[in-house]
Amino acid sequence: MEAGKTSDKPRDLDLLFNARSVAVVGASANPEKLGYEILNNLINMGYSGPIYPINPKADEILGLKAYPSLSDVGQPIDLIGVIVPGKFAPGVIEEAGKLGVKNAVVISGGFREIGNDELEAAMVAAAEAGGVGIIGPNCQGINYPANKLCLSWPLIKRKGGLALICQSGTIAAALGDRADKEGIGIAGLVALGNRCDIDESDLIEFFGADPNTDAIAVYLEGIRDGEKFMEVGKRVGKLKPVLVLKGGRTERGRKAAESHTKSIAGRGEIFDAALRKVGFEKVESIDELYDCAKALSAEKKRPGKRVQVLTSSGGSGIVAVDILEELGLDVAPLSEAGRKRLAETLPSHCVIGNPLDLTGDTPAERYQEAVLALAETEPGIDLYLLIFGDPIPRATENCREIKAAVDRPLVACYIGGGEVEEVEFKKMNSLKIPTFPTPERAARAARSILTGRKE
Amino acid sequence: MEAGKTSDKPRDLDLLFNARSVAVVGASANPEKLGYEILNNLINMGYSGPIYPINPKADEILGLKAYPSLSDVGQPIDLIGVIVPGKFAPGVIEEAGKLGVKNAVVISGGFREIGNDELEAAMVAAAEAGGVGIIGPNCQGINYPANKLCLSWPLIKRKGGLALICQSGTIAAALGDRADKEGIGIAGLVALGNRCDIDESDLIEFFGADPNTDAIAVYLEGIRDGEKFMEVGKRVGKLKPVLVLKGGRTERGRKAAESHTKSIAGRGEIFDAALRKVGFEKVESIDELYDCAKALSAEKKRPGKRVQVLTSSGGSGIVAVDILEELGLDVAPLSEAGRKRLAETLPSHCVIGNPLDLTGDTPAERYQEAVLALAETEPGIDLYLLIFGDPIPRATENCREIKAAVDRPLVACYIGGGEVEEVEFKKMNSLKIPTFPTPERAARAARSILTGRKE
Repeated sequence: MEAGKTSDKPRDLDLLFNARSVAVVGASANPEKLGYEILNNLINMGYSGPIYPINPKADEILGLKAYPSLSDVGQPIDLIGVIVPGKFAPGVIEEAGKLGVKNAVVISGGFREIGNDELEAAMVAAAEAGGVGIIGPNCQGINYPANKLCLSWPLIKRKGGLALICQSGTIAAALGDRADKEGIGIAGLVALGNRCDIDESDLIEFFGADPNTDAIAVYLEGIRDGEKFMEVGKRVGKLKPVLVLKGGRTERGRKAAESHTKSIAGRGEIFDAALRKVGFEKVESIDELYDCAKALSAEKKRPGKRVQVLTSSGGSGIVAVDILEELGLDVAPLSEAGRKRLAETLPSHCVIGNPLDLTGDTPAERYQEAVLALAETEPGIDLYLLIFGDPIPRATENCREIKAAVDRPLVACYIGGGEVEEVEFKKMNSLKIPTFPTPERAARAARSILTGRKE
Repeated sequence: MEAGKTSDKPRDLDLLFNARSVAVVGASANPEKLGYEILNNLINMGYSGPIYPINPKADEILGLKAYPSLSDVGQPIDLIGVIVPGKFAPGVIEEAGKLGVKNAVVISGGFREIGNDELEAAMVAAAEAGGVGIIGPNCQGINYPANKLCLSWPLIKRKGGLALICQSGTIAAALGDRADKEGIGIAGLVALGNRCDIDESDLIEFFGADPNTDAIAVYLEGIRDGEKFMEVGKRVGKLKPVLVLKGGRTERGRKAAESHTKSIAGRGEIFDAALRKVGFEKVESIDELYDCAKALSAEKKRPGKRVQVLTSSGGSGIVAVDILEELGLDVAPLSEAGRKRLAETLPSHCVIGNPLDLTGDTPAERYQEAVLALAETEPGIDLYLLIFGDPIPRATENCREIKAAVDRPLVACYIGGGEVEEVEFKKMNSLKIPTFPTPERAARAARSILTGRKE
């Protein structure tokens, strides 16, 4: 276990994410400063509770009345964002504790990450004495769109089903930015920083119970408290999909991790065993973390292996078959009845099989006709992988109708579709049709869906 | 070897790509038709030679005088694009042969891919009799920006160093589209289709000698003529990097490939051995095909293993170290002299090592200072991987200066950089600083560069 404040039981983080009032300590009127960007993002996010900028040298910042100190506010404050230089942070936390502030997001650096363990210990002591929960320090903050609470950057407004918990602000920002651009959005984003107090287990517990969250993506260099992690994991692993990318898998990566957030990077095998035990899924790359979480925020896990590929592009269909088979899935041939039924349904130049090649002239509707036919003759199919390998308009509407009619998960790939693809790709993802730019990435996401346990 | 016209020696394709005049047989005035899109793209590409639309029912199409048949043109024609229904193609080729047309790009389908082997044989016979070279049939055409010749879709105008040869129109289009969007551009693009005549070996030979081409990316389901492939490969493999993704690696993928372009999909092991022998690089996914070709169109291969990572994001640096080590590269620690020199050069909060963490406040210039210091104290470094894990303006200018000063390849990753990233990512790639969206993809590209043989 690492140094810092801890609690054996997961913390109640409701008033962190659902804070009813926020003070920004170190708010600045200078657009070059982080204290400006944080306050500006909170305002532009549309946060509806009172916002109190704290700055002894300003009367007003970004149109809001500023206060010299937290004590001067004279109103209850649930949450503070802290962007003052690290050396002032213990004093701020002490004052906050006396005023009944519940939580602090300490963005400031200058603590354990540069060897200043004493400063971090002093802040933790102040937090313990005052009953203040701390995210950070040395972190990129939090974002919770359900409460329009962005104490972070970049500004991500789009609300969706993905919760992101990362021991790296950059990775959190990159994942959140993708989710925003693809039309998916986030349930929440937390950059853990030095995690002197609130840790990954507390956050997994919160998002596990959070009604806005469909899937949880985690980047971790090490587990802070093994027992707590297992206890939370056993519970949340049954409720929601949790995907984990571990930094520090190799010996040299592990050493780098230890000097990064001064966290004890877990040994790979122990880490993997812990994940397996609680039913979290280990992933191997940032792309896979994002892709699988996206898939599982849209489709429920189910047990199974059999995947039916439908494609407008012969080559992309073959690439999909290769990778699906290499991943241990089963691209099973069609039954005689299925072949016969498709031959009656589809134009004669389609290539009937698995992959089912609808060929380059296919309209979106042909996918639907084919899937509906297959749903009747091939009950053994566990998942449909639809490849739109040309500019095929109305792919979105078509997929929605398929989803409404067929009781199987659906994963899509849109590739080589030019301007039509740009429109459909975002539309599909925003409507929870998990869509990927290559067959390989779609196949990995499909495997992730098919890891459900038998009831 | 497959059915169809063949020649043991690679063909001279100069007048295919550098055609001085082009007729579009099946040109159409109806924007819904492919015969319109092809002609429109050729015009909008800015092709400077004469263009002859052929259509018996039109006097003029898209502002150009149209002719009832090729024979009515009355001028020399180097190249024809064929978009008429397949059944008319043998007649068109026969007529073309009599008129001295050198090559035809047959986009029309309806041949071997739907079991109509006789029609394809008839067209091949006409081509042989008339000395006409054929790309296709059943293909997505060709694009050669150096001659402003786009007989394909989508319209890709940006000229660059990547040649794309694909037995899948969709994969060719997807790769070309990416190269265009990322500011890289293409040297050429060819969709092989049924490849009844001109094959991958002819094209590898052409782009191997083409001065516009820096790297060749190939998607193949099988090799058409093994001997010719080996003969061409041995030559081109020494001249230029050739990256190959094989469709049909698995048994079921192989069967699908055989029904796709009716080509004989090679057995994986034999295929792999052939690639090794000629020095082509096998890749495992569409992303890897693109990424490695992009890297090798910008940086020369060299032998080596040692990679130095510089990063503004601790987490991304750790992810990079893990994957580099897993790929068999060497993220070696710094020498004492190197550590000392960096400690003198960099601000004290930077974390000196490998990865070298310049931390989140780094300006672009700090990368340059660090690399210049390392170049003096660590001559054993084979490649620098620079991770810009925040919005860091002027990354491009900085990388260019590093490249000018340091005799080592450079690969970059831009991640979590929001709007600044969008600008810098494209600028960097367009200036041949190969830049990737994740550390994992950058690491794979780095490995590709470090596969050079010792002199």
